[in-house]
Order: sequence, then C-alpha cells, then structure tokens
Amino acid sequence: MIDAIVTGEVLKAITKAMVALVSEARFHFLENGLHSRAVDPANVAMVIVDVPTDSFEVYKVDEDTTIGVDVNRIYDISKSIKSGELVELKVEDESDLKIKFGSVEYSVALIDPSAIRKEPKVPQLELPAKIVLNAGEFKKAISAADKISDHVVFRTTEDGFYIEAEGDVDKITFFMSDAELIEFNKQEARSMFSVEYLKEFIKVAGSGDLLTIYLGINYPVRLQFDVANGKVKVEYILAPRIEAE
Amino acid sequence: MIDAIVTGEVLKAITKAMVALVSEARFHFLENGLHSRAVDPANVAMVIVDVPTDSFEVYKVDEDTTIGVDVNRIYDISKSIKSGELVELKVEDESDLKIKFGSVEYSVALIDPSAIRKEPKVPQLELPAKIVLNAGEFKKAISAADKISDHVVFRTTEDGFYIEAEGDVDKITFFMSDAELIEFNKQEARSMFSVEYLKEFIKVAGSGDLLTIYLGINYPVRLQFDVANGKVKVEYILAPRIEAE
Amino acid sequence: MIDAIVTGEVLKAITKAMVALVSEARFHFLENGLHSRAVDPANVAMVIVDVPTDSFEVYKVDEDTTIGVDVNRIYDISKSIKSGELVELKVEDESDLKIKFGSVEYSVALIDPSAIRKEPKVPQLELPAKIVLNAGEFKKAISAADKISDHVVFRTTEDGFYIEAEGDVDKITFFMSDAELIEFNKQEARSMFSVEYLKEFIKVAGSGDLLTIYLGINYPVRLQFDVANGKVKVEYILAPRIEAE
Repeated sequence: MIDAIVTGEVLKAITKAMVALVSEARFHFLENGLHSRAVDPANVAMVIVDVPTDSFEVYKVDEDTTIGVDVNRIYDISKSIKSGELVELKVEDESDLKIKFGSVEYSVALIDPSAIRKEPKVPQLELPAKIVLNAGEFKKAISAADKISDHVVFRTTEDGFYIEAEGDVDKITFFMSDAELIEFNKQEARSMFSVEYLKEFIKVAGSGDLLTIYLGINYPVRLQFDVANGKVKVEYILAPRIEAE
Repeated sequence: MIDAIVTGEVLKAITKAMVALVSEARFHFLENGLHSRAVDPANVAMVIVDVPTDSFEVYKVDEDTTIGVDVNRIYDISKSIKSGELVELKVEDESDLKIKFGSVEYSVALIDPSAIRKEPKVPQLELPAKIVLNAGEFKKAISAADKISDHVVFRTTEDGFYIEAEGDVDKITFFMSDAELIEFNKQEARSMFSVEYLKEFIKVAGSGDLLTIYLGINYPVRLQFDVANGKVKVEYILAPRIEAE
Repeated sequence: MIDAIVTGEVLKAITKAMVALVSEARFHFLENGLHSRAVDPANVAMVIVDVPTDSFEVYKVDEDTTIGVDVNRIYDISKSIKSGELVELKVEDESDLKIKFGSVEYSVALIDPSAIRKEPKVPQLELPAKIVLNAGEFKKAISAADKISDHVVFRTTEDGFYIEAEGDVDKITFFMSDAELIEFNKQEARSMFSVEYLKEFIKVAGSGDLLTIYLGINYPVRLQFDVANGKVKVEYILAPRIEAE
C-alpha cells in the first residue's frame, strides 16, 4: 500500500523533529506527501512535519493511508543510515513497516493509529513580527542562554531581533540587526519562552538551515525550520511563559 | 631473549583481539611468529591470534619463548601509540616486558605462564558453509541486531547469507546475495549465536578488513578476521545457542 | 575603563590556565598587559599568567585596573568562541564584565577583588637545571605516568632529562637526550612531584607549544608554557613531594 524511497537524511530529519515532543505519532501518507503532527504530553508545544512528494525519490501510495509509528524506534534506526543513502519504506499489510537500506531490512511493528493521542488542530495565530535568519545563529543563541537561565525573551524592535536571558548574576543578549537578518518586517513583538523546549527544537536544524520565526506579544511563537536541504519542513509552535514584572 | 619491533597498529590489534575474552594470556614467541590463544571464563568462545614474522619489522627470538602477559595492561598502553609508530618489545630476563616507543619506555611485569589458565586445544570442526565478506558489513549487521535482540541467527541458503534477529515486536534481516559476497560456496547452514560475544569480536575489525566465516548446522562458528592490513590473523570460535522451536 | 579585543584562543588560554588551580581570581589590567596569579587552596601550586599588550588586537585601559572574576564562568563562555574569532572585553562601571563576540553579548557580574584570596608573592627560587622541550612530549609523558602512579620523578643528568614513575608492578621511563631537547644546560637535578597537579597543568598546552622547565634538588619546579601561539605566558610553580628512601 505504501512504497517510498527517501535519503537517510530525510528519514532522520522527520523522526528527529517528532521525538523532540512525542514517542509515538500518526504518519499520514497523502497524495501530496507525508504529514505528521503532535503535541507534547504537557500541551506546551506542537510539532508539524511536512514532506512533499518531491522530497522522495519514489513515492507510491495507493490511497491516503495513516499508520501509527514508534518514532523513537525509527529515529534510532535512522541514525545508522548515512545521509545520502537510500532507504525504502514499505507497508504491505497494516502490521508492520519495512525499512530497508544496504543489506539490512528492519521490520518495525506498527501501532494502531486510534491508540495514539488525538492530533491537535493547528491554531490560527496573529503574529505580527516575521524574522528569517540562519538556524545556526539561533542555535548558538539558545545554547548560550541555556547556560544561565531556563527561560528567554524573544524581542523585536525596529532595529532588529533580540534574544535575552538573565541568570542570577549574569546576563546574555543576542542581537541581530535588520541588516544581518535575512528577512525582517520591522514589527515590534515580545514574548518569553522555556529554554527547555527550544533546546529540543534546535536539534533538528543544521547550521546552514533556514529558520523563519513568527512572533507576537505574549503570544505563542511559530518556528519554521527548512531542514535536510529544504526537503523537510518542520514547524514548532510553542506557548509563551508569563513574564513576572 | 626477545627483541621485536612492530607498528603500534599491530600491537593494538593483537591485544584488542585477546581482551575481548580474557585479561591475561600466554604469548608464544615461536620461530614462525607470535601465537596466542585463550578461552573466555564461561567457555563459550575461543580466540586464536597469529602474527607471522613478516608482520614484524624486526623479530629476534633466540629460542621458542613463552611469556605470561596482562593483555589489558598492554592494550591500554597500545592505545597511546600511533598506528604507524614503531614499538620495540623486549624481554631480557623473565621478569618484565619492555615496551619502548618515542621517548617512552614501559616496563611491564610478566606473569608466570603456569599461573594463567591452561590453553585450549583448537577443536576440529566440520563446517560446510564458507562465506567471505567485508568485515564492515558484518559489523553493521551485528550492531543493528544488538539493538533489538540478544541473539542472532546466521543462515545460508543457495541465494546467500542471512543474519536475522527478532525483538519483541521488531525484526531485522541482513542479507547479502551470492553476488554481493566476496566468496561463498553455496552450502546451506544455520546456527544461532549470542550477540554479546559477537559485539566484542567485531571491535577488532576495521571496516575495510576481510572476514571469513565457517558455518554449520547448530554448530560452533569460526570467524577469521584479517586485521591491521592483513598483518594479524584473529580467529574467534563461538559456541552456538540452542534455538527454541 | 577597560576595552580590549582578543582572539577566542587567547581568552580561552588565560582562563584555562587559571581554572587548573582556582575558580576566582584577580585580573590586573596594567599598562604593559594583563596579569593574574593565584595559589590553589592547598597551597601546593601557583599559577602566573601574563599577556602582553601585543597579544591583544585592541588594548585600551585608562589606568591600572584590577577586577575580580569568576574564571570558571569565563572559561565556560570562552569554550563557545572559535579560536580565531574576535572577542571584546569591556568593563564600564565596576559591576560587570561584558564579553562580546558575533551576535552574542554576555554580561558577567564582577567579584569584589578584596573578597578574593590574597595573591601570593612569587618566590625566589635557585633552580640549577634548565630544560626546554616540546610541550606535547611532556604531555605524553605525564599522561603515561598517570596510568601507573600518583607521583613522578623529574631528573636530569649530563645525558638528558628523565621522567620516571613506578607503579606496584610496572615502571615507566621517559627520556629525552641532550640532542633531542631544544635547550638543556646539563645541570643535574632531581625532585618528585604529584601527578594530580601536573595533569591539570598540561591541559593548557597544545602539542606544538614550548615548555621551559627549571628544576632543582628536592625543590619546587617552574614550568613555563608559551601558549596560544606564544601570545600567553603561563607559569606554574609546583612544590615537591618528599621521596621516601
């Protein structure tokens, strides 16, 4: 029913994106590609993964098919596949997913989709500020912030984009000016977020990947990563934390 | 009495092969080279190491000499030597082994050979199937199997060579066809082995090394690794596990 | 009051040298460069760091200024800076040190210098033997000695320089002849030292760095490392241990 071939890099990106929040997920093999989304058990963050058919080397799906997978398991397998190596994903009956690369074939038991937590609706969010930057720079800022605090403030002014964290005695400010950002609509916004979640999110991105941030005022943030050479779109939506005055 | 020079790579290969099963061993410096063998404390596996005189840069041994060595200790020392660096091994009196490289000289106390567990006889085994493959491929298969089970089945049919492992819900099959194998005599065989031991054995091999497997039906397997650019022959013999029906 | 620019490599070398012995230190920004020194809590060793103004890209200090810093904190930050990347160090008021590189600015709280343990006077030492060698060779010798003993003997004869360690059953001798040493005044000396301290000291040096040793008879040793391409001078003075006869 499903017979698809992707590179190891793409399979790894898809599963890495999901394991940041959940261990089981529904994978929808649709006419226009693979789609998956989930919220974490604490309902603080949502992940949305989209892989258009173009990102597959082969994509044969008889009809829209939903399977339930242990994403941790598949992520674990994907780590032993080289980036450029081709992997065949095959579902013949509904009991297992075959993952084949080189001389190795894994047969991974599927999970009944109805046994997996219901998928969230993607919320409509009015987010005034749009910032596009290099994901590598963002990773550096979050890693630095993580050393001194468990929450960070994302803030835009006309001048550019700030990420700020304050520890007991130290402070860190990351700043990229309008000129340094790839794109910026100069809208003002400000919200505070948990570093714990952001730390998980940034693992999905390589240093050359693109990141688009949509930011509001005390509102959730949308972080859209273009990963695996643009072949996989990963979006995280993260609820804000309340800033104490 | 013994004065030999080898590369760091060879010394490391020899000791790494032994430490997979034992911490102390007898090293026989014979006219035709260095020989060592041992069985593990549980009597499940045997290791046989042979290093012909050609694999030494210098090999001076007055008469056949047996020394008892702490292989862990020498393996530990060998890790601080570069692959291509020359190491001198010297036994003057029977009390210690001098290991000299660069500006450093270790003097390692020898163990009375009679205090080391008796060496096993190498068993005569009738093993119909012979398979020659790249050790790197074998390493990959064992590492993959290790993730889902503590035992694996090695199996040959006319078509080729299978390594199979079954977890609680997942399954992995490694297959190399006759055409993909370097050599294969098309004999049928099948036996089950402990992954725990195989995991130790594969550490000795680099990905470009050659591995020759002799396999029978519910019988021990012989794994012959050609390591350190063919300078060291390492053979493991592993007892089978009983397959539950 | 202070505005200085250095490479990441220099900042890392300075703080790495200090953290070997203390977690807080006084940094003196003087007319001729940065100077810091400290003894460890057990009074066994002293570290002296000197960075001439030439080693800074920019060095603006209005008047001699002493600040108290958490060296662990700054060392930690320095690890996220690339070797060749430029870092600005800025003290405007006396409350914090700003560390700026790329898009990131840290603001690290300063410590009242009077709250930091009093600095030692550098002792006058008559040390007859002078040995200059590659720090990488010295690192190898100390790492090797560390595997078998917690103390080592440094010893010079007319022939050269010995480092010796004795374990319960094993022995290691490191020897560099007069010809192999970069410089040696052929004076005889011999003292024993704790490996624990030496292990910390060698972390500061790269394998291509120069090390000058001044050695006496049952007397402290001076180890002068030229690190970060000669831009940072790090000196350790280590008290001897008493050799049991």
